[in-house]
Order: sequence, then C-alpha cells, then structure tokens
Amino acid sequence: MRVLDWNSLEEAARQDVLERPAQAVGEEVSAAVADILATVRERGAVAVREYTERFDGVVREELLLSQAEIAAAVAQVPAAVREAIAAAASAIRTFHAPGGYTPYAVDVTEGLVCERVVRPVRSVGLYVPAGSAPLPSTALMLGVPAVLAGCPEVLVCTPPTADGGADPAVVAACAEVGIDRIAVVGGAQAVGLMARGDAGAGIPRCDKIFGPGNTFVTEAKRQVAGMQGGPGIDLPAGPSEQLVIADAGANPEWVAADLLSQAEHGPDSQVVCVSDDRALLERLATEIEAQATELPRAATVERALTASRLVLVADLDQAVEVSNAYAPEHLILAVREPRVLLEGVTAAGSVFLGDHTPESLGDYCSGTNHVLPTSGAARFTGGVTLASFQLSMTVQQATPQGLAAMGPTAVALARTEGLEAHARAVTRRTGEVPA
Amino acid sequence: MRVLDWNSLEEAARQDVLERPAQAVGEEVSAAVADILATVRERGAVAVREYTERFDGVVREELLLSQAEIAAAVAQVPAAVREAIAAAASAIRTFHAPGGYTPYAVDVTEGLVCERVVRPVRSVGLYVPAGSAPLPSTALMLGVPAVLAGCPEVLVCTPPTADGGADPAVVAACAEVGIDRIAVVGGAQAVGLMARGDAGAGIPRCDKIFGPGNTFVTEAKRQVAGMQGGPGIDLPAGPSEQLVIADAGANPEWVAADLLSQAEHGPDSQVVCVSDDRALLERLATEIEAQATELPRAATVERALTASRLVLVADLDQAVEVSNAYAPEHLILAVREPRVLLEGVTAAGSVFLGDHTPESLGDYCSGTNHVLPTSGAARFTGGVTLASFQLSMTVQQATPQGLAAMGPTAVALARTEGLEAHARAVTRRTGEVPA
Repeated sequence: MRVLDWNSLEEAARQDVLERPAQAVGEEVSAAVADILATVRERGAVAVREYTERFDGVVREELLLSQAEIAAAVAQVPAAVREAIAAAASAIRTFHAPGGYTPYAVDVTEGLVCERVVRPVRSVGLYVPAGSAPLPSTALMLGVPAVLAGCPEVLVCTPPTADGGADPAVVAACAEVGIDRIAVVGGAQAVGLMARGDAGAGIPRCDKIFGPGNTFVTEAKRQVAGMQGGPGIDLPAGPSEQLVIADAGANPEWVAADLLSQAEHGPDSQVVCVSDDRALLERLATEIEAQATELPRAATVERALTASRLVLVADLDQAVEVSNAYAPEHLILAVREPRVLLEGVTAAGSVFLGDHTPESLGDYCSGTNHVLPTSGAARFTGGVTLASFQLSMTVQQATPQGLAAMGPTAVALARTEGLEAHARAVTRRTGEVPA
Repeated sequence: MRVLDWNSLEEAARQDVLERPAQAVGEEVSAAVADILATVRERGAVAVREYTERFDGVVREELLLSQAEIAAAVAQVPAAVREAIAAAASAIRTFHAPGGYTPYAVDVTEGLVCERVVRPVRSVGLYVPAGSAPLPSTALMLGVPAVLAGCPEVLVCTPPTADGGADPAVVAACAEVGIDRIAVVGGAQAVGLMARGDAGAGIPRCDKIFGPGNTFVTEAKRQVAGMQGGPGIDLPAGPSEQLVIADAGANPEWVAADLLSQAEHGPDSQVVCVSDDRALLERLATEIEAQATELPRAATVERALTASRLVLVADLDQAVEVSNAYAPEHLILAVREPRVLLEGVTAAGSVFLGDHTPESLGDYCSGTNHVLPTSGAARFTGGVTLASFQLSMTVQQATPQGLAAMGPTAVALARTEGLEAHARAVTRRTGEVPA
C-alpha cells in the first residue's frame, strides 16, 4: 500500500481518495430480484419452497424450524460458543436498553397538551446471513433490540445449510435472545416472504425488515421498501468500511490487525488509515503485508486492500476533517487523546477510542450495534438502535379553551395557504364566522 | 358517500376498503427527473437557472435571496399573519425541543464503556412548496427542528413566484425561524441542487433533504437517496390521509369538517370515517355533501371523496383494529373516551383526541409536526422530529482490563463465523496465542 500525501493532492484527487468502490447493481440482478418478488407475492410459501429447492438444493415442507429442530441445533453448539453468545447478548442488552424513544408530554398552552407516545413495531423480520459465513452475531444485534422493544411478532429468516436445517450457532443466538420463529429461507425469496407473509406457513407479514445480506437480499430489500404499502427497512447495506486515525504513538501491529479485520469481510470492503506521522504509515504498510499473508482469507483481504488507502495529513485536526468528509461506518481513534478528537467527529457510525478497543469488539460484544451506515450514510443517520424497532407517534388534545387559544392561529395560516376547509374545521367548532 | 358494513364484507372486500389509490409514477416522469438530476449534477447552478427559466418562466442570476429581498418580502406579510407564524413557531419549538436523541453512557463491564453521542446533521436542505399553494407552515415544521438541532448549514429551497421572488409568507416563516439561506428554485432541479451543492452559488451540498412536493420533487428525492453516496431523505411523501373514529356522541358537523379539511389537500387525498353507529355515519354523509359544496376547492374535494369511505363496525375495538390495519397518517378519535381507545392504537402518524382537536390544529400550530408517514408507512415509522435532524453515533472505549474481560467473547464468536482476522485484532493485543 502506497502512502498518499493529502496536502500534495488536488481537490479532484482528494475526492478520488475518499471515493467508495462503485456498487452498481446489474440490471440482471435487479430483474431477477423483481421476478422472484413478484412470484413470492403471488404464491407465497409455495413459491419460496420452489426457490429454496432451486437455489439451495434443499426441500423443506415446513419453512419454520420446529421446537425439536431448535433444541437439536442448540445442542450441537459447543458450550464455549454458547457462553460467548450469552455474554455478547448480555452486553448488547445492557447498552441498547436506554436507546429507545422517550415518551413525553408538553402543555403547549392552557388546554392544549401534545405528547409523544411510543409503540413497538408490530411485526419485524430479521434476515440473518448464513451460507458461506453464518453470522450468529447478526442474530444478536437484531434480535436483542427487537425483543427489548417488545415487538409482538419477530421472525428470523436464515438460509438453509446443506442438510436443510439452519446454522446451529445462528439458532443458538436466536434461542438466547428468545426468538423461536425461525424460517429456513434465504435470498431475495426470504425478503419477499417477509414483505408478504403467509399465514398458512406461520409467517407474519413484516412491517419492517432488518439485516445485511448479499446483493440479492439488499436489492430485494430496496425493491420491497419502494413498493406502495411496502415494509420499512433498516438501512441500505453496503460494503463494510473502516477508517483509522493513528498518531505517532499508535502501535502499527495493532492498527494493521484492525485494518485487516475489516478487509477480511469481503473483496469490496474498504479500509483507510489517516495519520500525521509518515513513519507510522510506512511501518503500517509493511506490517499489513506481513500479517495479511498469514490469514485464512488472504485472497479476500488482498482484493479489499486494492481499494484501501494510507493517507498522510498535516495534523490530527486535518485527519478528523478527512474522516468527517468520508463519514466511515467504523472509526478507530488510535491516538493519545481520543476524547479530544472525538469532539470534532461529526459523522461516523461507531467510534472506537484508543489503543485497546479493536473494532472487532464492537462487531461482537462491546454492546453497540454492528448494523451501521455505510457508503457515507453516516453523514445523515446512525446505526440500528432500540428506536429502530419502535414508532414514535404524536398525540394532541385540546379543550374548548385550548382550541379558542390556538384556533385563530390555525385559521390565519390556513387562509394564507388558501385552505379554507382547514380554517372551517376550527371555526365550525369555535363559532367564528367563516371568512 | 355510501356506508360500508365491515362485518358483512369478505376479507378481499375489506382489503379493498383499506387500499390506497395507486400512486404509480409514470416512466416518463421518472426519466424526466433522471435527466434533470444528471444535468444538475454535471453543471450545478448554471443548469438550475436554465430549468427555472424553462419551467417557471423566471430568470434569476442569484439563486439565493438577498437580505434586502428577504426584508422586503417579510414586510409584505400582514401583521396578523406574521403573528400567527410566530405563535405557531413557538408551539412547534415547545413541543419539539425534548424530541431529540438523548446521549447516554453505560459501563458494560469494568473497563468497557459504551456511549451514544448525538450530533446535528451537518447540512440539511428543506424543500418548501409554493406555486399554486405556498406552504409557510412547512417552512416552520422543518425549519424549527433544523435550527433547534443546531444543524450548521440549513438551506431552504422554494419555487419562484411569477415575479422571480419567493412567496412572502414562506420567507416570513424562514425569518421567524432564523433561516436566511433561501434559494428560489423548485421542482426536481431544486432536489438535484441540494444533493450536489454549488459553492459558487452559495449552495451547500446537503446531507439530508426534507419536505413534501409534487410528483417530480418526490421522485427526485427518491432517486437522489438511491444513488451511491446520495443524501438521506425524511420520508417518502404520499398523498395525505385521515381516519376518524367516531362514536354515537360525535358531532357530525365537526367530523364532516375534519374529513373535508383533509380532502381539500388534493384529489388523491383519502379520508375514512369508522363508527359503531349507523345513524352517525348517515348524518355524516349528508353533512359532508352539504359542506363540500360551500368550499372554494369543491372540485378537488369531490374528487378526493371518491376514494373515501364511511365504515360501520361492531364496536370501537373493531374500529381501532381497522385503523391499525390502515395505519393512517392522521387519526382523529372523536369518541367519549379517547384515551381508552388510544391505548390500543399501534400505528398512526399523529393522533387527535376528542371533539375539540381538529386535525388542522396539528397541521399548523398544536406543536406536533405535520410531516408524517403516509401510505401505511405509519406501521413502521413516525413523522419528522428533532431526532430527524440528528445523528446518533455509538462510541466505545476499553481499557486493557476491559479488553481482557470481553476479548475472549469476541474471539470465540469471530472464530465461529470464520473471521480469523477479527479474532487476531483482539489476540495481538491481549497476547493470546492465535488458534
């Protein structure tokens, strides 16, 4: 990896440094997904079974796992892994619990009270990837807040294993969280099934769909969310990213390990290290190369590193500027005074302070959520929280006195906007003469 | 309007009653918007000026209003309207102030703290419709929380009047709120400009775009939000809706006035009244007809009423079930015990309790926001709040002790997921031997 000197770059070159690899979804993918969704919409679970046979080579009559299957899967998981799942769930619960919408009421004027009331989303669908890399951690990250929010219906969809079951660790994570409605179905057909529901197959129609997935899953989420009356989705999921700000005192071995942990997610992952110390960046380049070759997923890592950067800046304030412009999903502040730098951070999904907080801690068990904004979406949104599983509704109630006090304001504004019926909804009650 | 008896309807007919009018965006609109966005993306303010001349018949060198233009526009607004604007802004401020994300910190375990920190979105663009119906109220509903959140850059875009200025009441609303960056530009080109920015024309690149608009504006928001690295948007805006639950004690004159106030928004608005009292519904039908003919926008109202419904149910619990399935943008509980019914409401944008809280109060000045979820999106999201203008970022910091405590959990889960580099980002720090 080459070290780029930010202050020697023209504006266009700087933008180029901060550019994500293009993520265009091919028209064939788009059309294939549209076709799957239309078919599932029409025929429900029947169509899903056919797709599962075709794409996964698996035949299942019941989409949902039985209690016996769940128990058998959990029993397969080594005790140490089950303990780790429980410990992670506990940390996630502890951090997420205070993160919901707070209900409140305000007396706007005498006789007029306005309130926020909070409700769980009635029915949520959680997509948990499996296949080549089963992600029990995602089941925790979505399942813990769904259950904390009290969503009345929680459905997990996860792709089948070769034997037609679900990944045991994913099932164990669901069991830990208290979710026992697990449908063994993956891909775009899973998203279509969640959006539609199928009462006969025990599948609720989901009001909101969460979770990462491959190109097909992501495109299917985008498509169902765009349909009239379609469900909500959590975040548009893109490839994972990490930006590290490191000062001269940072440990190159550890920073390299952090960058590589992100790079192993996929060939389209992107990692960036910004530092005010050229020597650190040079040692880092060497260290990354050395560590990369030792990794089981070395090929993936090598490909991700081609879109990755080492950037030299004048000082740490400039490093923060670069980071804010990039708006990384994950930001590591491997500096001596991380809290000072944090003050200036205006856009990042999740921030890791100091030398002893590897990003992988947040991926699993620090307690924060790992479903985070990518592709620069951290400029305008945070990641998944308890509030993602809630609705914040507003409520207002006026007495005749309250209406008398505020009604004339509504009437004046309604008439300014040419909306006379709006004015009369007030004046018919208060007895004023319509204009 | 005919009274439909819910309990005599088959399931399919029930779904039909709750169906929104189809809102398909024509391919020509989609293509025209894509073309405008691509042109604005390439040429910025220059292209915007050309579109403004072509679509609005207006030539403006400076897109932004000058301070003198702002002062002149405000001076044109009658004092009574300015007072109404101030009163509404004050109510909106009072209610919105507590509605942001609450920062918090949790000690997950000894040596591991996790936090939520809250930041304003750096740059927001607020679209305020004008043209046939200027909406100063929308400037208040978006401007008040944008300023309360402390967004460093707030831009309002609003279409030009015939003389090339902005609607005076919209400008007065911006002035009341404290926004003086007002670009006179409407339509898809305004959305394109906000998404791109143009430093030379004094237009910031907006990280999030808010506000209602016509088909072109809505489609443009959808398209820019779908682009890689594109801005966030508030809500997918659809036609306005209102559902009233009325009991035998409700006043048919007032309920009719509420339904008509919603119907006058546009021909595609939808209003529904659900009651357990057939006599009330029949009187309501008569009353709606009588009041409708007296309204200035009678033609619009008549067209909206064709998609509207009066629904008879067995009891008020069933009325709430119907409402929850419909998930209305606005819900009026014109019943004797509105708070009892509210308990069962699980999906609605904004709720109006009792006989003396017309929906138009919420449209202008009760204090709640009028940018609300439509088309059933109230199943999974609330309307605009202070939090819509904020980011909720997570932060974590571990000491060596904290990492020693939680690290093994991360390592166990990373290895379960086959992500060895994730495990090593921990073990290289803690000194454990890699597996």
